[in-house]
Amino acid sequence: MNTEKKTIEVCFTPALFDYYKNEESIVVIVDILRATSSICTAFFNGLHELIPVSGIEEARDYKNKGFIVAAERDGKILDFADIGNSPEHFSPEKVKGKSVVYSTTNGTQAINMASACKKVVIGSFLNLNLLAKWLYGQNKNVIVFCSGWKKKFNLEDSVFAGALSSELLKTDRFSTQCDSTNASIDLWNTAKGNILGYMEKASHKNRLKNLHIDHILPYCFSLNKAPVLPVLSGQTIINAF
Amino acid sequence: MNTEKKTIEVCFTPALFDYYKNEESIVVIVDILRATSSICTAFFNGLHELIPVSGIEEARDYKNKGFIVAAERDGKILDFADIGNSPEHFSPEKVKGKSVVYSTTNGTQAINMASACKKVVIGSFLNLNLLAKWLYGQNKNVIVFCSGWKKKFNLEDSVFAGALSSELLKTDRFSTQCDSTNASIDLWNTAKGNILGYMEKASHKNRLKNLHIDHILPYCFSLNKAPVLPVLSGQTIINAF
Repeated sequence: MNTEKKTIEVCFTPALFDYYKNEESIVVIVDILRATSSICTAFFNGLHELIPVSGIEEARDYKNKGFIVAAERDGKILDFADIGNSPEHFSPEKVKGKSVVYSTTNGTQAINMASACKKVVIGSFLNLNLLAKWLYGQNKNVIVFCSGWKKKFNLEDSVFAGALSSELLKTDRFSTQCDSTNASIDLWNTAKGNILGYMEKASHKNRLKNLHIDHILPYCFSLNKAPVLPVLSGQTIINAF
Repeated sequence: MNTEKKTIEVCFTPALFDYYKNEESIVVIVDILRATSSICTAFFNGLHELIPVSGIEEARDYKNKGFIVAAERDGKILDFADIGNSPEHFSPEKVKGKSVVYSTTNGTQAINMASACKKVVIGSFLNLNLLAKWLYGQNKNVIVFCSGWKKKFNLEDSVFAGALSSELLKTDRFSTQCDSTNASIDLWNTAKGNILGYMEKASHKNRLKNLHIDHILPYCFSLNKAPVLPVLSGQTIINAF
């Protein structure tokens, strides 16, 4: 085994991914509110596979072919979709054993952008520890790819990036010289004692409140409630755990 | 006077500026290591005007016309330049009453990108309080534009953004719902008790150490040592204080 330490970098938004991407790295996609929390929940509830698509028309074409479609833009379910983008939509009754097509404002676009890299895995607070343990074993550099909000930085994804980076740096297998990784760790250390209180100031928390769907927040910031390993395999995401 | 609160947003890198720019806003350009610290020092030492140029060839053309040229790339003085990009290069002997052409890796490019906005002003720890006081009086939305490092986020500019945002939010004239502003304030609060110790982990600190120019760090993180107000006026920067 190569004993050289592996690096961790955090990319704060899709608009910066070109400056971080590397075909030899593992990319962890993060969209805490709500895509990657929903994906982890869906696999925990027995989803067979997820087909991420970026465009609305592509999602509609799948719907017309008879697929179950989960799709939202700006926090709202698209009119032709079966379900939206909240973890609660991916109940065992809805997804167990099923293939679901998925398109969201930020998260699925990040998945498609990262697809040229070595491996792509889905990260959320819900699968934090299992994800960290899996990454220890991969012996590859890691890029934590925050989906952000419309190309801008967001707090919830960055704080998660800090939580994951802190876990990885507890071992002697990783090191970092990346300023955004170090910043995200400081944000996590500021937030972790009362993460829901910390997120009161997050702009997306207020967007969800305005849509009356902020009741999902406590779940999305819970640790290790959905220990799964959603990885991109070809064009679909499957659970590798 | 319009009593509606004005907004503060922080743009972490030039690669994100398109998502923040607004012709009606004041843009504060930040490149703590070292462009904006050097510019503040230069005006404090009596510089008449600074002519920022993005390209190396443009800087060389000015040199051939007889101008004093300050220019660096990747932390190193360009071979045709008179001086580089450290505050100590802009001594009164070198710059008092003079026009200087200036081109750096990150800072001058940010200045040119921002030039379409309402006003462009130079920020550093060296002019923090005077800058904040001036911004209170402008009654405009503020975008703090971090130069970053080669399009990536950096710690020193972001921590300064937090320091400036904290100052502005102490008054009732500003508010923010911007996640990167709130993150930068948390970073400033983490750093401010021992800012030089905090910056030990900054990647650019290590770049400067490798170039044997890290002795400038204590000065660049000093508060209010060069109380000036460098603002863009047409194609040049002048001191508006």
